[in-house]
Amino acid sequence: MISKKIEETVKRIKPLDKKIFEQTQKRLNNLTKPLNSLGRLEELAKQVVAIIGKEKPELKKKVIFTLAGDHGVVEEGVSCYPKEVTAQMVYNFLQGGAGINVLARHIGAKVIVADIGVAEKINVADASALELKIKKINFGTKNFTKGPAMTEDEAVKSIEAGIELVEEELKNGIDIIGTGDMGIANTTPSSAITSVICGVDVEKVTGRGTGIDDKMLENKITAIKKAIALNRPNKKHCIDILSKIGGFEIGGLAGVILAGASHKIPVVIDGFISGAAALLSYTLQPTVVEYLIASHCSVEQGHNVILKYLGLKPVLDLNLRLGEGTGAALGINIVDAGCKILTEMATFESANVSTKISNL
Amino acid sequence: MISKKIEETVKRIKPLDKKIFEQTQKRLNNLTKPLNSLGRLEELAKQVVAIIGKEKPELKKKVIFTLAGDHGVVEEGVSCYPKEVTAQMVYNFLQGGAGINVLARHIGAKVIVADIGVAEKINVADASALELKIKKINFGTKNFTKGPAMTEDEAVKSIEAGIELVEEELKNGIDIIGTGDMGIANTTPSSAITSVICGVDVEKVTGRGTGIDDKMLENKITAIKKAIALNRPNKKHCIDILSKIGGFEIGGLAGVILAGASHKIPVVIDGFISGAAALLSYTLQPTVVEYLIASHCSVEQGHNVILKYLGLKPVLDLNLRLGEGTGAALGINIVDAGCKILTEMATFESANVSTKISNL
Repeated sequence: MISKKIEETVKRIKPLDKKIFEQTQKRLNNLTKPLNSLGRLEELAKQVVAIIGKEKPELKKKVIFTLAGDHGVVEEGVSCYPKEVTAQMVYNFLQGGAGINVLARHIGAKVIVADIGVAEKINVADASALELKIKKINFGTKNFTKGPAMTEDEAVKSIEAGIELVEEELKNGIDIIGTGDMGIANTTPSSAITSVICGVDVEKVTGRGTGIDDKMLENKITAIKKAIALNRPNKKHCIDILSKIGGFEIGGLAGVILAGASHKIPVVIDGFISGAAALLSYTLQPTVVEYLIASHCSVEQGHNVILKYLGLKPVLDLNLRLGEGTGAALGINIVDAGCKILTEMATFESANVSTKISNL
Repeated sequence: MISKKIEETVKRIKPLDKKIFEQTQKRLNNLTKPLNSLGRLEELAKQVVAIIGKEKPELKKKVIFTLAGDHGVVEEGVSCYPKEVTAQMVYNFLQGGAGINVLARHIGAKVIVADIGVAEKINVADASALELKIKKINFGTKNFTKGPAMTEDEAVKSIEAGIELVEEELKNGIDIIGTGDMGIANTTPSSAITSVICGVDVEKVTGRGTGIDDKMLENKITAIKKAIALNRPNKKHCIDILSKIGGFEIGGLAGVILAGASHKIPVVIDGFISGAAALLSYTLQPTVVEYLIASHCSVEQGHNVILKYLGLKPVLDLNLRLGEGTGAALGINIVDAGCKILTEMATFESANVSTKISNL
């Protein structure tokens, strides 16, 4: 059962007003360029205007939520990195040396790192550059090939933690959200969630993650099939799926996504793990997709299945598969460009430029 | 015949050292991320390092060259905008209100606007925000359905003008170049050039430009076929092609591209018109492609033909077809992100992050 907090968040998510898209397109058509010649930039600008409800959107406060958690299924040999890398990478985030730090600086975004389920205690005294949010639900999930990954209560709490992360940051202002993840082995639960919700064979939604070989890929597929057969998640019930075959950071990101949409903030989702979180949020409220922008198409084959299922068209296709929110950062930058086109370009009238001959 | 200036520029363009790609990949592999997980960003970083010859590239001085020229073929009814728009847009550039101004500000780039063949005199007193470079070869090309677009001497001078634009800016420093164009009707010569150099039917390389209807598209195709049949350009000779069926800004951009490569500066090419310029530069020196980065894939169908012919893979696919350098600006920003990954990310060692288990 979902909690009151989640229910209230979900209820606040309303369909976007299609009229705003038309009105914004009219304004775009007055700018000094051939009609629709900025393609996707124009589409993104319209979506942002419809979401935030301001004619001149300014995306000054860009916030990327990078949630970290561990996964019991790592003991099945599904990743080529040891599980302590999750914690080590959290320290790397806090010291500004990870990919997401570099790309967040590049686009002028703030990164909020949250420990929502890392298997060890993070010593925050080691964190110099950035603040760490502690939202730890537990010290990693359980191995879901042997039983549920977490309790239903933990599943609910992980989503709530994501909602809280967004709501706590609202006081500082958030104009656009990016989602990101860190968790050794987390493509494994993401594939499991994708297979169950999208109804697609495990083989077709499972990839090489950090770069596993054929034998480990076979292992990984076997582990996911075993977990689904054993736990029998109900594809229509978010909490059932999340508790049985999910992960804390995946639940948390579902919460971030729902909170963003409920507060009328555009949410730029990263790759495969964020996609699995988007699927979970979709089972609670399909309208949430109207608030989502798919930043890129990951190398992980399951990601494309998710994007098709949700009807989302990725902005970028750069063969990324790092996670952390790196794709989201680059995507946010393109969204920002689209909004600036809308707000900063001259009109035919203001620039004294002739319009089309005989209104062709 | 090409001039001594062009010949010297062409001669300075040397193949890139493949060893630098390998050495840089090794450095990328030490950064705290799974191998190759930043896909295209890593590829771009390697190319930049190989071009500029510095291990730690910093792309601080980003310069977009936006060249404007008019086209006599406009009188055949191939565009839905009147030709005075070329000059009007130059004023718009100078006042900072055009798409390229917005996106250049977004990425922190300088825009150098050059009149290389606008059909009227640009009154620079009207230019407030930006400097205008006057490199006017003539007041627009001639209608190439009735004879050559320009003289051979003008063709040579237009390429030289592009080289000069780059070389004059070298004193201020250029870390990366973007190319851009403005010229009502300039998709028409670009299609003609693409058809001739790539040996592809006119129908397959001709698109709707600013948004013409079926009837005008038919007109445009007829005009291009007529021009090629009448002028019989030699597909192997740059100056012959440029003088017969080209345009001043297209020749100028070929010069910008050649000068960039000859001074070991990465050149991010924009869409279809810049692509036609790249084809011209390629006929003089095929090695130039090693210095090129295709920013995006334009809606204009001929652009894809060019990219395949040159073996270039576009970074972005955002349904753009504005020109001016808008796609190049967004592309430069991704290249910049790739370089920052290489220079700013922590290594496994520096961040104390465990590497792969048993060197999988």
